[in-house]
Amino acid sequence: MTDDPRTEDLGFARVDVDRATRTGDAEVVYGAGKTPAQVVSILRTLHEHHPDRAVMATRLSDEALHAAEAAGAEVDRVARAATLGPMPTARGTVAVVSAGTSDAPVAAEAALTARVHGAGVDVVTDVGVAGLHRLLGVRDRLDRADCLVVVAGMEGALPSVVGGLVGVPLVAVPTSVGYGASFGGLAALLAMLNSCAPGIAVVNIDNGFGAAVLAARILRSRA
Amino acid sequence: MTDDPRTEDLGFARVDVDRATRTGDAEVVYGAGKTPAQVVSILRTLHEHHPDRAVMATRLSDEALHAAEAAGAEVDRVARAATLGPMPTARGTVAVVSAGTSDAPVAAEAALTARVHGAGVDVVTDVGVAGLHRLLGVRDRLDRADCLVVVAGMEGALPSVVGGLVGVPLVAVPTSVGYGASFGGLAALLAMLNSCAPGIAVVNIDNGFGAAVLAARILRSRA
Amino acid sequence: MTDDPRTEDLGFARVDVDRATRTGDAEVVYGAGKTPAQVVSILRTLHEHHPDRAVMATRLSDEALHAAEAAGAEVDRVARAATLGPMPTARGTVAVVSAGTSDAPVAAEAALTARVHGAGVDVVTDVGVAGLHRLLGVRDRLDRADCLVVVAGMEGALPSVVGGLVGVPLVAVPTSVGYGASFGGLAALLAMLNSCAPGIAVVNIDNGFGAAVLAARILRSRA
Amino acid sequence: MTDDPRTEDLGFARVDVDRATRTGDAEVVYGAGKTPAQVVSILRTLHEHHPDRAVMATRLSDEALHAAEAAGAEVDRVARAATLGPMPTARGTVAVVSAGTSDAPVAAEAALTARVHGAGVDVVTDVGVAGLHRLLGVRDRLDRADCLVVVAGMEGALPSVVGGLVGVPLVAVPTSVGYGASFGGLAALLAMLNSCAPGIAVVNIDNGFGAAVLAARILRSRA
Amino acid sequence: MTDDPRTEDLGFARVDVDRATRTGDAEVVYGAGKTPAQVVSILRTLHEHHPDRAVMATRLSDEALHAAEAAGAEVDRVARAATLGPMPTARGTVAVVSAGTSDAPVAAEAALTARVHGAGVDVVTDVGVAGLHRLLGVRDRLDRADCLVVVAGMEGALPSVVGGLVGVPLVAVPTSVGYGASFGGLAALLAMLNSCAPGIAVVNIDNGFGAAVLAARILRSRA
Amino acid sequence: MTDDPRTEDLGFARVDVDRATRTGDAEVVYGAGKTPAQVVSILRTLHEHHPDRAVMATRLSDEALHAAEAAGAEVDRVARAATLGPMPTARGTVAVVSAGTSDAPVAAEAALTARVHGAGVDVVTDVGVAGLHRLLGVRDRLDRADCLVVVAGMEGALPSVVGGLVGVPLVAVPTSVGYGASFGGLAALLAMLNSCAPGIAVVNIDNGFGAAVLAARILRSRA
Amino acid sequence: MTDDPRTEDLGFARVDVDRATRTGDAEVVYGAGKTPAQVVSILRTLHEHHPDRAVMATRLSDEALHAAEAAGAEVDRVARAATLGPMPTARGTVAVVSAGTSDAPVAAEAALTARVHGAGVDVVTDVGVAGLHRLLGVRDRLDRADCLVVVAGMEGALPSVVGGLVGVPLVAVPTSVGYGASFGGLAALLAMLNSCAPGIAVVNIDNGFGAAVLAARILRSRA
Amino acid sequence: MTDDPRTEDLGFARVDVDRATRTGDAEVVYGAGKTPAQVVSILRTLHEHHPDRAVMATRLSDEALHAAEAAGAEVDRVARAATLGPMPTARGTVAVVSAGTSDAPVAAEAALTARVHGAGVDVVTDVGVAGLHRLLGVRDRLDRADCLVVVAGMEGALPSVVGGLVGVPLVAVPTSVGYGASFGGLAALLAMLNSCAPGIAVVNIDNGFGAAVLAARILRSRA
Repeated sequence: MTDDPRTEDLGFARVDVDRATRTGDAEVVYGAGKTPAQVVSILRTLHEHHPDRAVMATRLSDEALHAAEAAGAEVDRVARAATLGPMPTARGTVAVVSAGTSDAPVAAEAALTARVHGAGVDVVTDVGVAGLHRLLGVRDRLDRADCLVVVAGMEGALPSVVGGLVGVPLVAVPTSVGYGASFGGLAALLAMLNSCAPGIAVVNIDNGFGAAVLAARILRSRA
Repeated sequence: MTDDPRTEDLGFARVDVDRATRTGDAEVVYGAGKTPAQVVSILRTLHEHHPDRAVMATRLSDEALHAAEAAGAEVDRVARAATLGPMPTARGTVAVVSAGTSDAPVAAEAALTARVHGAGVDVVTDVGVAGLHRLLGVRDRLDRADCLVVVAGMEGALPSVVGGLVGVPLVAVPTSVGYGASFGGLAALLAMLNSCAPGIAVVNIDNGFGAAVLAARILRSRA
Repeated sequence: MTDDPRTEDLGFARVDVDRATRTGDAEVVYGAGKTPAQVVSILRTLHEHHPDRAVMATRLSDEALHAAEAAGAEVDRVARAATLGPMPTARGTVAVVSAGTSDAPVAAEAALTARVHGAGVDVVTDVGVAGLHRLLGVRDRLDRADCLVVVAGMEGALPSVVGGLVGVPLVAVPTSVGYGASFGGLAALLAMLNSCAPGIAVVNIDNGFGAAVLAARILRSRA
Repeated sequence: MTDDPRTEDLGFARVDVDRATRTGDAEVVYGAGKTPAQVVSILRTLHEHHPDRAVMATRLSDEALHAAEAAGAEVDRVARAATLGPMPTARGTVAVVSAGTSDAPVAAEAALTARVHGAGVDVVTDVGVAGLHRLLGVRDRLDRADCLVVVAGMEGALPSVVGGLVGVPLVAVPTSVGYGASFGGLAALLAMLNSCAPGIAVVNIDNGFGAAVLAARILRSRA
Repeated sequence: MTDDPRTEDLGFARVDVDRATRTGDAEVVYGAGKTPAQVVSILRTLHEHHPDRAVMATRLSDEALHAAEAAGAEVDRVARAATLGPMPTARGTVAVVSAGTSDAPVAAEAALTARVHGAGVDVVTDVGVAGLHRLLGVRDRLDRADCLVVVAGMEGALPSVVGGLVGVPLVAVPTSVGYGASFGGLAALLAMLNSCAPGIAVVNIDNGFGAAVLAARILRSRA
Repeated sequence: MTDDPRTEDLGFARVDVDRATRTGDAEVVYGAGKTPAQVVSILRTLHEHHPDRAVMATRLSDEALHAAEAAGAEVDRVARAATLGPMPTARGTVAVVSAGTSDAPVAAEAALTARVHGAGVDVVTDVGVAGLHRLLGVRDRLDRADCLVVVAGMEGALPSVVGGLVGVPLVAVPTSVGYGASFGGLAALLAMLNSCAPGIAVVNIDNGFGAAVLAARILRSRA
Repeated sequence: MTDDPRTEDLGFARVDVDRATRTGDAEVVYGAGKTPAQVVSILRTLHEHHPDRAVMATRLSDEALHAAEAAGAEVDRVARAATLGPMPTARGTVAVVSAGTSDAPVAAEAALTARVHGAGVDVVTDVGVAGLHRLLGVRDRLDRADCLVVVAGMEGALPSVVGGLVGVPLVAVPTSVGYGASFGGLAALLAMLNSCAPGIAVVNIDNGFGAAVLAARILRSRA
Repeated sequence: MTDDPRTEDLGFARVDVDRATRTGDAEVVYGAGKTPAQVVSILRTLHEHHPDRAVMATRLSDEALHAAEAAGAEVDRVARAATLGPMPTARGTVAVVSAGTSDAPVAAEAALTARVHGAGVDVVTDVGVAGLHRLLGVRDRLDRADCLVVVAGMEGALPSVVGGLVGVPLVAVPTSVGYGASFGGLAALLAMLNSCAPGIAVVNIDNGFGAAVLAARILRSRA
């Protein structure tokens, strides 16, 4: 098995260097629970196999962000992510729309991920439903987007409201922002799954990364 | 204890005929699990103690509605409720705002309850957040109300949106409308408890009655 | 407000006849809790406003299916849905992939919905992960699709396996098929939300309709 | 959008300086997850737009409390909150009633919030239902209040008992006080939602702020 | 094993005829899921082994109640239970206290069970906490009891209030009375487990039987 | 109210010095969330009102244990509790039976509480059901007890097994010992509530205190 | 794909006729949600491919049991299952041990499944832990078994007790027998997952079939 | 009782030195919540009673690993476990198959436990279902195993896929790897319990130990 060219064995991990061939997207380093050295090692391995396009690591600790930066990667401290290699040309626009300032890290992870996966990005922040004029004030930016990633915690109402205004694909991201009966994002997750606006799908709590990969694939399918 | 004038003992129930003195509102017959004969008997007892104002029974079966009607009560088949005695003069306006047509029974229970407890009522239906123009089209009616009861199932987003538009007290009622991950109204309940709009409080799932009692008390407090 | 041309008031419901203008898709009749007469009435209203393209009613009882058929609609008894008006030209292909025979109603609802919303459909059934050769035997059909709707109950593993094979957008639909610790589809829902394959989003339990609307929008965005 | 006078853009947040016009209440700084500098900056911005009435920040860390005090704000260390600007004249009385000493922070947040929003406050502490004479001993204070905010953790029984004694609006606040099967306040939340006393509505666990905003609006509506 | 005198093998069940020797109480027939014939057969077997004291069957269907009556048993239709054989002499008093009329079946099961197990019983009904005067009106009966079984649904507050008034052992029984966020009695169960009054223990939802067995053992231990 | 002799107001807490008169047991200091100084202050107040019998504080931090010791109290470091004043004469025997070594703190809290409340105690440890011979080896000690407090975490099976062997009252205490699907003691709690052995009641997770108060009252009722 | 000899396409289902080659066991018809005609059709197809060994259908309705019997199958009405073809020679012994009479259907499904999959079976019923002598009375039968399937509802304690007595593999089956806080078998499931006896694994609630397949494979591995 | 030769009393614990006689396996030290000294003391006691075969301690802190090593034990830092005494001869092969690198600690605990209990082990890592070629690349190793322990977090799909490929007994271990809606491993646990592949049983979240004891017993039964 060690001879399988589709897999690079680093001892502590078996890197799937064939994924871009199968799915169009390189593997991404999920940094949670990995040491800074492991993050850098996998990132470099992926970069060697994909020298012409940025590869990415997410959910990095401060130490891993520092190590990645020292290894030549670009780091995004809000998104807690790092990229290595040149960004691809942006095609189309994913609007990353978020409800409150506390949702910023998830929105930033989504925005960076979409860029790494080839999409242009428009970031629209702090347009929660309790101040509807803020949302209606950015109506034109929503209309210009080819796909929407909508990020919200607490009651998670933003995707329903936005979903009634637009006809492009919408990926909803519940966040763990809230307390008490938010139960770590469960309230927002359930709300989004029960949205009365059609054409909305949902990813895991705080999973800005997954939403953006889907959004980028949606845009790519239209190229 | 049978001599306590604050309680009327019917054998199968001890009716709290003192409640209006203590709280300003007569006891209401909660019909679930009671026979038609029991409903009528309690309703009559309450009517005898409060001949000058309507008393009420809720959550009635078809049989109990029929029996109540035969006993001279007014029945509201959508609300599944009956009243006996003259309606009080309406003071102020509670707007009962609901998201979808399936929420009608809960909204109707709230509207009738508010009337029985002395409030005027304006019923605004089918203004779910996925068609924002429907809600914005009734903005003036929201502004005219002294208190709002907002009824919604599924993702339960309506109270958050309405709560950002008005400054009067708002009581939110989650309904069990929905399926799958709505978990019998839990999704809407959690969403409303986590609303980012301040000044919203929530009652039990499908409890249009309780929300309207509170709304009527709020209006009464301003008389 | 009765003069708002964006809404048609039928007394028991306010039909949003403006939705196609806003979002590109006509409103769809959600039949659960509606009488056969109400279903037919709303379906006709929508058809009058959209005579050139099929409109749709879902979650129909046997009685509502019968009434819709008598009113000239096409009915799909597996999907429990009816359509009125000519189907649009199919553009692109949504593969509706399901795990077991019990998932058929949800898959059928998804397939019909995708067609009504303008997508071509390839239906792939009974390819659960416990018989991997069945799934690998349809690999070429997965590869030919522009978007995938993957339907599964019980442990909900199919989207993860399919998601590792393809690079097109994938919408996962958990179903309530199962018993005991499936908790009405919760097990499949949680599994899909936690998929280790990137680029997967999830809709509510048994919501074939919602998944297909999103899939059709994804395809439309590429036209 | 930067020209919208209803919003002040601080870079890290878009402050809704129009809220008082829309709803009668200025925006409040929710301090959780914000740096002391951010808290002070938003508080000052709000103060500049509302120089004649106190603005408020809640859920402050020790550092944020210190920074707010250094910036000229009044701080309430039990409530973990700060105010800037002159308190409004008190109109009417909200009784903030709490069950145990551990509920003090939530009760203090409610009391301060009610004052900032224009209500007079009477704080009644440590009247849990297991010592009924303590509650009955303050009966007159309950009777004098125009609205009640009732705060309790553990089994959350206090609102039901108080709700049977009074006829004014009652807002119930479950707290996370408890252990084991209290599940972070869930037990108290469910108890309050199921109260057999009519006219009670509930806010999120530990949300003294939200309960008090509603209470203040109730009093204001009677002015 | 068929020779074990401690067990009587009826083919469909192995009756534990030794239990009274081990624990002082005969086995009781739990009727749910058993046919009327099986109920009668086990009841007779137990009666033969304990001719001098009543044996008991609970959770009986209408058919099983009828069959038991035909077989010479006494039936209690509210409690849905039957007894065969002479009642033991009553020693001491268990007060069975319940909150609402809907709790009657559980209270009746508790009362009958306590009698069968040798305790005297005082049944106190309809003393829910929202009408405190009803509870305080029976204070003397609470004080005379040697042990309390307190039955309540909805918010389950009654044991906490009663538990603060008395010093004798108190067994709390949550009932499934309620709707929505009562979640089949879960709300009352959690409330009782979190009671702030010390010396309270709780049995399963609707388990009047189990509470009464414990209460009778408590009384017996004092003989 | 400050003149009410049934309550001593310490500023930060209102001590219920009347409880012993009402219920036979003095109030106990629940130390969680209280400062060492507060614990000592309340303990002293209670001691002054009950000089002839030990008063008690539970759930103490290391600091509070130290402060209590310095103030003349006896401390039990396993139970994390302190007592002040002479122990009452022991009457009868409560057997505190626990399943595993990790349950020791809860068992110790129960044992000390039972002693403070007047019961004699026999502590039986480490007799989990997976080594039945250990349990059967202490059968005689179980038989000699007047009441049992049975403490177990993980699957919580011990009360069912013990409950089938004895006929005296049994109070079950689930503990939070376990991991994964024990969900903080929920598994043991549910198991105990569903015990097939009759005559078992359950207290909150880790609530050795509450179980022992009930056990002591049971013994006292037999004096 | 229709040419794949590993799959037989019946139109309404694709039968995996290759499973015995891959895993040693033929596919089994899961009857829930299938018509009697479908059950018979699949059973016959499987029988044609495996004429020398019994094939099986489970979870059959009364109608499906009748149809299967008419088609020549053997039916087991307690297990709600049918078999077609000759039983294999029994090798080794699986003891199917159950706690109460209500667990009989699940135990019967397990016993029949084990036989169909080649194991000998010893059925031990009604040995719940609250009557330990019944369990200890069958100790020798437990000791003679090569593998144990232990079936229990309510508190699910039986596997822990049995697991401490034996050293052979033990598969635990929680059942939905119980009420209230059993939550449809969840209590028993959690208890079994948290068993303190090592070497126990658990299957889904009421899944006697799955447990027996595993048990038969365990025995087969030793042949 | 101190004379019972089946139990060794260490003061802080009663060691079950008879377990190997009863079940074939010596007791294992569960290190969570024990001091390093306690771990070493119990390990030595077990070693004295079983000098000819390795005894084991699991869930060790860094300090306990260090203390065990100093006491002559072998330590496995990934598994957080220690063994004392000679490993038994390996009979048969348990394949420990895991999905991702984060599952390594659980897989290592399973592997070491299987060895201590007499099985040979083949460790197969990082073969998650989203890269099916990795799993199919080790197909021959799966086929050679006598029993499988399959370890996975997140969506827990691996046992279903593996279970469709093999016919030997399979024990599934959900891990707590994941975030958000994984709810600490609950998603993986539910998925595994609902596996559509027959012959799979499940142990507690992260319980590699328990799965391996069962696997070793399965192999031993075939000797």
